[in-house]
Amino acid sequence: MTANTPLLQQLIDALKALPGVGPKTAQRMAFQLLERNREGGRKLGTALLHAMEHIGQCQSCRTFSEQELCAICSDPSRSQSSLLCVVGSSADLQAIEQTGQFDGRYFVLMGQLSPLDGIGPAELGLDRLEQQLAKGDVEEVILATNPTMEGEATAYYIAELCHRQQISVSRLAQGVPVGGELEYLDGSTLSHAFSGRKRF
Amino acid sequence: MTANTPLLQQLIDALKALPGVGPKTAQRMAFQLLERNREGGRKLGTALLHAMEHIGQCQSCRTFSEQELCAICSDPSRSQSSLLCVVGSSADLQAIEQTGQFDGRYFVLMGQLSPLDGIGPAELGLDRLEQQLAKGDVEEVILATNPTMEGEATAYYIAELCHRQQISVSRLAQGVPVGGELEYLDGSTLSHAFSGRKRF
Ligand SMILES: [Zn+2]
Ligand SMILES: [Zn+2]
Repeated sequence: MTANTPLLQQLIDALKALPGVGPKTAQRMAFQLLERNREGGRKLGTALLHAMEHIGQCQSCRTFSEQELCAICSDPSRSQSSLLCVVGSSADLQAIEQTGQFDGRYFVLMGQLSPLDGIGPAELGLDRLEQQLAKGDVEEVILATNPTMEGEATAYYIAELCHRQQISVSRLAQGVPVGGELEYLDGSTLSHAFSGRKRF
Repeated sequence: MTANTPLLQQLIDALKALPGVGPKTAQRMAFQLLERNREGGRKLGTALLHAMEHIGQCQSCRTFSEQELCAICSDPSRSQSSLLCVVGSSADLQAIEQTGQFDGRYFVLMGQLSPLDGIGPAELGLDRLEQQLAKGDVEEVILATNPTMEGEATAYYIAELCHRQQISVSRLAQGVPVGGELEYLDGSTLSHAFSGRKRF
């Protein structure tokens, strides 16, 4: 029999929504919070409810934001930059910000092209990206999608958009390990890849 | 700069209350919930608040329970058993229940003796255990504390309590790996250790 009470079992089941958390880890997390850190558990519960409810996407770059415009898009020195970096996720944006190497603006795809999963240009907001490019103030688009097959296909598609509007396109330099995921790179690899980017 | 908004940063910080979750993992968890599973994030938030608020301890065996008595202590066929198994935590109780080898009652210490951390007999409810033993209906106490130094010291202390009341004491059989933690054992090792328990 399971000796877990209904509330405890609900908590354990709910913890399995976290990536990399199976039943055993979920149980350990639940017990640890109950035994040693109820205040932390309460704070986490409240933070989750607030975040899930109030965090939307920036109307300009699509990164996560509870404001209409994120901090970067609200900063004129960045939102009027002629450099636009396209990334797959907010986590990738965050990883690039942490290198301190880039002071332009971003466009966050929140995914990558994957026709089999029903993810096409519309799902990645590429119509909105095209409108932004059509304004004519972007001189270079830096493609910083993941160096995976789907990331490359996505980059190729966006490069075509740019070519049609005669906008320069570059891609992060090799140095990014093939098949890896951008958000796990150390900052210095990412810095090198950034400064060594080449024309697409 | 960090590109995380205040709500997002609060969520990431709050996730670090979970055991084994550092800043990088916390960020990944936050993004994954926001991107792909907001419903799961909301459920987890609600489950955490309910659990932290409403889960207390069983008045008899001290395991986690939102009722005054847990399911085992509410079951007469178990709560009147002459076998009482003492465990360090609710997770250990749960691990033993899953072997299906034991149908007696439990006493959950919620810790182990650790004078340097201010954890003495009172903190482990040993006064209450002594009262339960004094009723005279327990014939054997099975000590299933962790096979660590502190677990052994705790077992020794409880064995003394039992000897004073002329109650038999046994300890889980060797087979439990020295220095290991009970809740991570596979069920069959634990079953063997249970059935091969020896007089203390
Ligand atoms: Zn933005
Ligand atoms: Zn109980």
